[in-house]
Amino acid sequence: MHNAAEALFCPADAVDAFGLDAWIAGMLRFEAALVMAQSHAGVVAVDVALRIASACDATRFDAKAIAIEGAKNASLAIPLVAALKRQLHPSDAGFAHLGATSQDVLDTTQVMLSAPVLDQLLVDAQDLAQALLALAAEHARTPILARTLMQSASVTSFGLKCALWAASVVRAVVRIRASRAEAMRLQLGGAVGTQAQLRAACAQSTQAQALGKLVQHMAQTLGLQMSNQPWHSHRDVWVALGLDLALLAGSLGKIGLDWGLMSQFEVGELAQRDGGGSSAMPHKQNGVASLVAKGAALRAPMRAAALLAAMPQEHERAHGAWQAELAEWPSLLCSTAASTQALARAAATLVVDAPRMLSNIEAVRAHLDAQAADEWFDPNWANDAAEQTVAMLEPLKKQLDT
Amino acid sequence: MHNAAEALFCPADAVDAFGLDAWIAGMLRFEAALVMAQSHAGVVAVDVALRIASACDATRFDAKAIAIEGAKNASLAIPLVAALKRQLHPSDAGFAHLGATSQDVLDTTQVMLSAPVLDQLLVDAQDLAQALLALAAEHARTPILARTLMQSASVTSFGLKCALWAASVVRAVVRIRASRAEAMRLQLGGAVGTQAQLRAACAQSTQAQALGKLVQHMAQTLGLQMSNQPWHSHRDVWVALGLDLALLAGSLGKIGLDWGLMSQFEVGELAQRDGGGSSAMPHKQNGVASLVAKGAALRAPMRAAALLAAMPQEHERAHGAWQAELAEWPSLLCSTAASTQALARAAATLVVDAPRMLSNIEAVRAHLDAQAADEWFDPNWANDAAEQTVAMLEPLKKQLDT
Amino acid sequence: MHNAAEALFCPADAVDAFGLDAWIAGMLRFEAALVMAQSHAGVVAVDVALRIASACDATRFDAKAIAIEGAKNASLAIPLVAALKRQLHPSDAGFAHLGATSQDVLDTTQVMLSAPVLDQLLVDAQDLAQALLALAAEHARTPILARTLMQSASVTSFGLKCALWAASVVRAVVRIRASRAEAMRLQLGGAVGTQAQLRAACAQSTQAQALGKLVQHMAQTLGLQMSNQPWHSHRDVWVALGLDLALLAGSLGKIGLDWGLMSQFEVGELAQRDGGGSSAMPHKQNGVASLVAKGAALRAPMRAAALLAAMPQEHERAHGAWQAELAEWPSLLCSTAASTQALARAAATLVVDAPRMLSNIEAVRAHLDAQAADEWFDPNWANDAAEQTVAMLEPLKKQLDT
Amino acid sequence: MHNAAEALFCPADAVDAFGLDAWIAGMLRFEAALVMAQSHAGVVAVDVALRIASACDATRFDAKAIAIEGAKNASLAIPLVAALKRQLHPSDAGFAHLGATSQDVLDTTQVMLSAPVLDQLLVDAQDLAQALLALAAEHARTPILARTLMQSASVTSFGLKCALWAASVVRAVVRIRASRAEAMRLQLGGAVGTQAQLRAACAQSTQAQALGKLVQHMAQTLGLQMSNQPWHSHRDVWVALGLDLALLAGSLGKIGLDWGLMSQFEVGELAQRDGGGSSAMPHKQNGVASLVAKGAALRAPMRAAALLAAMPQEHERAHGAWQAELAEWPSLLCSTAASTQALARAAATLVVDAPRMLSNIEAVRAHLDAQAADEWFDPNWANDAAEQTVAMLEPLKKQLDT
Repeated sequence: MHNAAEALFCPADAVDAFGLDAWIAGMLRFEAALVMAQSHAGVVAVDVALRIASACDATRFDAKAIAIEGAKNASLAIPLVAALKRQLHPSDAGFAHLGATSQDVLDTTQVMLSAPVLDQLLVDAQDLAQALLALAAEHARTPILARTLMQSASVTSFGLKCALWAASVVRAVVRIRASRAEAMRLQLGGAVGTQAQLRAACAQSTQAQALGKLVQHMAQTLGLQMSNQPWHSHRDVWVALGLDLALLAGSLGKIGLDWGLMSQFEVGELAQRDGGGSSAMPHKQNGVASLVAKGAALRAPMRAAALLAAMPQEHERAHGAWQAELAEWPSLLCSTAASTQALARAAATLVVDAPRMLSNIEAVRAHLDAQAADEWFDPNWANDAAEQTVAMLEPLKKQLDT
Repeated sequence: MHNAAEALFCPADAVDAFGLDAWIAGMLRFEAALVMAQSHAGVVAVDVALRIASACDATRFDAKAIAIEGAKNASLAIPLVAALKRQLHPSDAGFAHLGATSQDVLDTTQVMLSAPVLDQLLVDAQDLAQALLALAAEHARTPILARTLMQSASVTSFGLKCALWAASVVRAVVRIRASRAEAMRLQLGGAVGTQAQLRAACAQSTQAQALGKLVQHMAQTLGLQMSNQPWHSHRDVWVALGLDLALLAGSLGKIGLDWGLMSQFEVGELAQRDGGGSSAMPHKQNGVASLVAKGAALRAPMRAAALLAAMPQEHERAHGAWQAELAEWPSLLCSTAASTQALARAAATLVVDAPRMLSNIEAVRAHLDAQAADEWFDPNWANDAAEQTVAMLEPLKKQLDT
Repeated sequence: MHNAAEALFCPADAVDAFGLDAWIAGMLRFEAALVMAQSHAGVVAVDVALRIASACDATRFDAKAIAIEGAKNASLAIPLVAALKRQLHPSDAGFAHLGATSQDVLDTTQVMLSAPVLDQLLVDAQDLAQALLALAAEHARTPILARTLMQSASVTSFGLKCALWAASVVRAVVRIRASRAEAMRLQLGGAVGTQAQLRAACAQSTQAQALGKLVQHMAQTLGLQMSNQPWHSHRDVWVALGLDLALLAGSLGKIGLDWGLMSQFEVGELAQRDGGGSSAMPHKQNGVASLVAKGAALRAPMRAAALLAAMPQEHERAHGAWQAELAEWPSLLCSTAASTQALARAAATLVVDAPRMLSNIEAVRAHLDAQAADEWFDPNWANDAAEQTVAMLEPLKKQLDT
Repeated sequence: MHNAAEALFCPADAVDAFGLDAWIAGMLRFEAALVMAQSHAGVVAVDVALRIASACDATRFDAKAIAIEGAKNASLAIPLVAALKRQLHPSDAGFAHLGATSQDVLDTTQVMLSAPVLDQLLVDAQDLAQALLALAAEHARTPILARTLMQSASVTSFGLKCALWAASVVRAVVRIRASRAEAMRLQLGGAVGTQAQLRAACAQSTQAQALGKLVQHMAQTLGLQMSNQPWHSHRDVWVALGLDLALLAGSLGKIGLDWGLMSQFEVGELAQRDGGGSSAMPHKQNGVASLVAKGAALRAPMRAAALLAAMPQEHERAHGAWQAELAEWPSLLCSTAASTQALARAAATLVVDAPRMLSNIEAVRAHLDAQAADEWFDPNWANDAAEQTVAMLEPLKKQLDT
């Protein structure tokens, strides 16, 4: 399905990352890696494996027909495998997709298609954190109004605001690195998660520990972790990665919200120079990055909820829930990636108006009696914030670097 | 953004309904209708209007470039309007998009793109209701186990189950008809919802009530209702339609869940002959329609929540929430449409095993003492259900026909 | 379960509306009404009915014990009915709860407990709409900055902002009135929704149409609509009311968001005098009503999603989903009611600073060249908004009055 | 707010864990610990601190009045602090709540109130995992139908089903232990998160590093981690714990769903002996634990979404979102805890019908030709599952023990 209104919530180079062509290429990559691994483990003859692997060439497949059959069968893998077998000599066909099930293909492909988007997301998140840390260092002592419940409350420093934003991004990076390491793994459970057909085939091999070799070779080829268990209907490790993305989207939403508020004409403490214009009003300059961050933070919780709601899956493979999970995933990943990238780029060109921050404090002071003004709105309160800011910088940089 | 895993949750002919090309064609339709209506109301000269309208030809526009600029500007309409103006003689360009704002274009286009999907959905829903009503009539007295909390509880009739399913679909049709009538309307508020630029232009017209004429003409051309108020940042009428779709998805999810349970091998009361096979197991016959219905019912609540969560929108146009709403809408509509279509088709070929329904009752009776068996599992209890079923049929048919 | 942090999102007099005592009283009201209706229909002897009805006295029941047993049985009604029967002479006991099932008791009680909260909500919503319409009339021509994407865009009138807020509330009132009329109904399907036991008992009555009489009498006693069908596992009519509440919560969230933005010190166009202070900062004056409206708008979508997600319910009564729906409902209703009440009260004392609205326009003009300033920020643009405002007032008042 | 229908989704002894009395006691614990820590750090005189701490006695406070004022001020802490100060001699009052803000009190109290519920949840989760591992060991080779898309697919072992359920619970335990260690921490940022007032007070102390001492003493007293940063409006660490709870709820929902399906009369492979009866049907035995697990899994995603949606919080303290988060938390925690406890108890008494598992396989075989029956439904396929099961047991036990 195409949704042009989602392009705003997707990095430009990921717009087709989960499109039909990418899916077909990914599924074929799975099938080729499977049969080559089986050859490596002595389960399939080398020449047969090579013929099958070389048939895994996307240009030979009718994507549209696969899509149509896929919808009828509730699985893109079923027609893909059938088409692959049709391309092979009958005596080879039985060795294609041997011991695998359609969910093995689909889950592994979803993982593979996610990898580059996720990698870029982490790069962007690190850039964003660095940019915010640089602002934090530069403005550690820059006084700014602290606002609680949308009212002027006291004074903090702009640096501390930046450091706290950065800290939330750094924590997200740390979390995503860890959950990615768990989640980016091969699915290869076979028809019902017992690897029964694979085990039977491996039993015919002359090699010792053929199954272990097979799985390791395949995982390595695809750049994934091995999984010692099928995760066909136990989705928590995969969903955990999604939730960490949603947490990042939430933290970025806070940044976008703050930027939006600080960029109001009447506040004027920040300006985003990221090119948002207007079809009607030439004088307008909209903050697109903060808009994307706010919109993505609004969408991510619902996708996270969809992944969670899809966790109760019947028996060995789900009847509806898993298919819904597959469909919900790309928007969560892409939306969060778009938010990260937009903010990372905008952070690099963010215009900070320190004098305006100070004059906004002065304006509040002017409305108060001298005692209250001094007790709560002395710009020197920024020094406390500065101390805290400075203490945060080094540890955050370290976390980012490891 | 493309998401091949969503094709399962989209009617085949709606896969590109919200794609980039559809969006560009729709936006151009808006611009052409606007200028022709302005000409009709004496605001723009006829020849200028015709030249602009004929420039609204999608083949002349670089879709990809518009997409890229659209993401940068958080609005597909901004680069589209710019491209349109570049195609015109400078003296005409000022009359294109006159008095409109990008949200006018985008909201109206979203409405227009939704119309055919929604129309088909209503046709399918009516077909589904009819098929269920036919089953209800046929099986009004067919005894079947009534099950509560997933346990055999007593006896009802399969006809009553069908009638209650049908009734929920009929109520959904009635609701969607009503909310559609409200929601399928023109957005034409101008830059900030006051139609100020339009009013100024109309004031130059020699015609009386030029603005009213303009709006009516434009709405008529596009097959939409007029809106007497801008709905740029007040989204309840549009979201209400979305919620009615989600209600339908929920009711269909109940049907899919029941079908799935009744189609289990051990229960065997229903079989869906809708062609779901398996890549590994040739003996399997999966219920794809019920799978789609269950999956769609899992997704719809989250999209409904996203629309609701996006309702708090700042001032005259939102900074993130509206853009998120646009992105969330297509999956809700298409997912519900796919569920409706899948069930409508499957209902026509549903295999009902009445003898098995009876033998399942007998199996329960065999585990109980005679008194309990007769008190709760006498197949004649189906007669009460039959009475209720028969009383429901005619009123439901009437509601469907009006 | 008690949750003190929810008190903020609940009208003060509804804090216990869904508490254990209210539930027990409501369930007993159901049982008394049932047996009196059965007596009226000639199914139960008058003296037996009176004895049972008089036993339906909450002071005689051990609420805590019922709660504990209720959790064990996944139903408060089961121990309540057991306790009621224990209070009766064995020869009477068989006539208590006759023909009803625990879900009949629980659904009907949920409806009854909701009624007063909903009534107050509608009163408050009407008050809010009236207050906003009064502001709209007063400020129809008061110029104010129109802001799009959080940036100054042009000029509108404060009256139009108020009229559009009011219109969304009026639409919600109209919707809730309609869905309430459908939803506030009796549940009386018996064990599996066929009313089998009731029908059997009514067949013994000497009265014609005993079942019809019984149901009508019972519904009337409880102030509810009759339901011609069981809705044990078809929840759309009830959920539709919940969705209309969520739509109202969303529209109120927009009002709260706008008020919050306009009440910022730097903007200063509105002030809420609703008493929110600070434990640390005596100079602060927080807008509590807008806070509640924003918080409730954040919560409502998730509750709406929960109701929708709970719609797929197995067979004749659900195994988990219905019980979840019961648990999710009160917060949706109370949260929306609290938002409505808070805004209604705050609207009555809202401080509007028209001079500040004008000076904010002037401040924008000062940053633009004269032509742009005049083209987009001429305060006279408010006149277009005024026209629209004035045209809206009477129709809205009429809708509110009917 | 009270919600009796939530009792089903709350461990019996946690029903009042977040009630008004618990909140007041918790907030007073905070104030006492604060002033005693200040005394320890030389900021407040010992006798003053002792007088204040001893005034922190819940029996002296009017809970109802605090609740009413709390709702008006959008904060229970504001009236609590005011009431505390009223109880003190004016010369002491200034030392109560010194340097803290109401959010410090409320966040820390929410954490403290959550601790015992979370501790019990972990105990129950471990019990559940142990029970499932015992079943896995016992039934490692017990053949059972493997079912995909709700259809018989092949053969696995009941032990593998149990081992995979257990593994998901163990992963959840590991995750929750880790996120709890991060999340159960003190909030003490002062008015705007800079600890400015605390720092000022500490500067008067004769002790070195008075602030560090103060914070450490207070955290230790309350059994919490120190937080080196305020988390007033950066909620990710706290929300991460909530998401881990939701992941557990999802995994438990899968178990409940499977149990429900296997407990159907027609399947008969499992029976839950956990006492769920029926108000109308004495022959029924409902599976309450699986019902609770399914219901909780339906609710948790929406609460998780609410926490995520509440993450974008304005500036130094939120205007609505944080307050919504506080209100949403208890149901997520209690619902997950109830699900865990219910399944843990039911697992201990689960009735496994191995012969029925085998006869269900035989019934499928009887419908197939001999070749298909042997290829896919040979009970010996359970041996592959057994191998996998056995390999899983020890590592899982180890993870549980550490």
